[in-house]
Amino acid sequence: MVDKTVRFCILGCANIARKVARAISLAPNATLTAIASRSVTKAENFAAENNLPESVRIYGSYDQVLEDPGVDVVYVPLPTSLHVRWVVMAAEKKKHVLVEKPVALDVAELDRILEACESNGVQFMDGSMWLHHPRTDQMENLFSLTNSQGIAPVHFIHSSSTMPTTPQFLDSNIRVKPDLDSLGALGDLGWYCIGAALWAKGYQLPTTVAALPDVTRNAEGIILSITASMQWDQPHQTIATIHCSFLSHTSMDLAICGSNGSLHLKDFIIPYQETSASYDFTFGAKFANLHIGWNLRPEEVHVANKLPQEALMVQELARLVASIRDGGSLPSTKWPEISRKTQLVVDAVKKSLELGFKPVAL
Amino acid sequence: MVDKTVRFCILGCANIARKVARAISLAPNATLTAIASRSVTKAENFAAENNLPESVRIYGSYDQVLEDPGVDVVYVPLPTSLHVRWVVMAAEKKKHVLVEKPVALDVAELDRILEACESNGVQFMDGSMWLHHPRTDQMENLFSLTNSQGIAPVHFIHSSSTMPTTPQFLDSNIRVKPDLDSLGALGDLGWYCIGAALWAKGYQLPTTVAALPDVTRNAEGIILSITASMQWDQPHQTIATIHCSFLSHTSMDLAICGSNGSLHLKDFIIPYQETSASYDFTFGAKFANLHIGWNLRPEEVHVANKLPQEALMVQELARLVASIRDGGSLPSTKWPEISRKTQLVVDAVKKSLELGFKPVAL
Repeated sequence: MVDKTVRFCILGCANIARKVARAISLAPNATLTAIASRSVTKAENFAAENNLPESVRIYGSYDQVLEDPGVDVVYVPLPTSLHVRWVVMAAEKKKHVLVEKPVALDVAELDRILEACESNGVQFMDGSMWLHHPRTDQMENLFSLTNSQGIAPVHFIHSSSTMPTTPQFLDSNIRVKPDLDSLGALGDLGWYCIGAALWAKGYQLPTTVAALPDVTRNAEGIILSITASMQWDQPHQTIATIHCSFLSHTSMDLAICGSNGSLHLKDFIIPYQETSASYDFTFGAKFANLHIGWNLRPEEVHVANKLPQEALMVQELARLVASIRDGGSLPSTKWPEISRKTQLVVDAVKKSLELGFKPVAL
Repeated sequence: MVDKTVRFCILGCANIARKVARAISLAPNATLTAIASRSVTKAENFAAENNLPESVRIYGSYDQVLEDPGVDVVYVPLPTSLHVRWVVMAAEKKKHVLVEKPVALDVAELDRILEACESNGVQFMDGSMWLHHPRTDQMENLFSLTNSQGIAPVHFIHSSSTMPTTPQFLDSNIRVKPDLDSLGALGDLGWYCIGAALWAKGYQLPTTVAALPDVTRNAEGIILSITASMQWDQPHQTIATIHCSFLSHTSMDLAICGSNGSLHLKDFIIPYQETSASYDFTFGAKFANLHIGWNLRPEEVHVANKLPQEALMVQELARLVASIRDGGSLPSTKWPEISRKTQLVVDAVKKSLELGFKPVAL
């Protein structure tokens, strides 16, 4: 009998890798088979700290783990500037890839990654965990124009992703280093906001994108805080405003308003708790007589999830990989397409910034 | 013994006047003493429909009621284009004024109104009811830099005010008629969003204001939907995005994020219910270990109010008027200043629109 389990390795022992290691262990169709760091000691420490089973193979170099025939999927939480090198190499070794966001420094790099994955027949997925929560699927139904109980068409989207950081972070963290993550908050946090706006629009690319003139950068020019707008002209006007910042209190807001209703979340990227998540849905709101109140309050809709969203992400990737590996399927184009569109908008925001906040057509 | 009650008249029997008539009857220091319409019949119908007491004097012209020595305050819910004429005339007759928003078509008109009020020693206030809710006062404390349990400094503000309308409304309602309310949704709804952003910034005017390029207009060029940004450079960067529309489902969102916390409301203009209102306050949020959730959820803070916010507005105005009338006080400059700053930003958004969405400095 074929073992249906898909075997993951982790390339680089970043902090986020702890969460994904746990997710791999929780996903019923995945197993963590190897980890690699630039030093064996670091990898051994990671294994010990995360109580990884003894069966997990430990590698002191990224190259070595890519040669391991017992690895199906490589999870890449490395700094963004290293993605293109290691993801392309993994694909060439016929490894499927799970790549942390932002996927690349620009769409040219991302295309090198996607081309390598396509030509080697391997599945690509980025690490946007929230897209795998059942809450996300459920809300998506509200955007369908055929759903008379939904909010479509969508007219307005607002999304924020902010987190407070320390002066040390702003000075020296990987995510604000020009040689490591030169997209700063736009890449790390804006990826989510842009992704959420695209998701709400069924992944239709906006007509234009513009950075608003309130950008904050560190001494090395890396974006610490930025606000931008995305605009769609067809089939009807829609506008999204996004705000991301390393300088503010933790927020991850998503508010979407359409013709017939609205949707509000304050935890769209990481739900408040692991086992269920909720959203506020308002449909058919009117004012009471004399406008002294509303006829209803938003309904708080709860969505239970048996597995945390990151485990659902791993499970979905493992499902796709198993059907390629064992069933001869082709890789799904859904996930690469979502990543590419997100990257295109990230690039456009950056270009607008470089052009002095001029709108950039897509 | 002096009667401390302040005597209101209503100039024009607009729909909103029904709500304010009730508010005057609820405010303990105010009484409705007269109403005026362009026809006696219309005024009589309004009195009957709203069960006004027989003591309320009925006038068939606006001029006449302004001659009534038993009137202290004139409430003006007329179309915006008529404000300057009738409010100036009321002030010249030494009547205090409560003026519906938007106060004027531009700041030049507003200044004529405020100059008339100042030179005649009468109190001016606009009809922004939400500013009088105790919830608003309570939230204001969260913006103080000296409040270590608050959210200051404020970095980001998002506010929306949208309402669905009918095709008939979009074609012929007062609020979309060039000769009556040429500011359209920007005046009617944007007044609230702009006011909320200014309020959150302690009424510091923004450095620049810009309209975003998603404006929708009707055949006569009136704004039906618009999005704009307000930006402050000093003492620190703050950005506000505002969205107002006659084309979307009912929403009145206010989200404010600062260094140490955030604040969310979905009913900031008209609370869901009359007797209490709430806001969501998040302070010191962090992620749980491995970022698998949050250490806390927003706290839903409830604020009870004995009187509806519109009655509190009337009560506050009546208090100011009584102390001018009976105690020789000078009119408060607080309310005219708030209205003037709001109007300045409304004008700047309109100018940015005319300039092809260029930022306008204030």
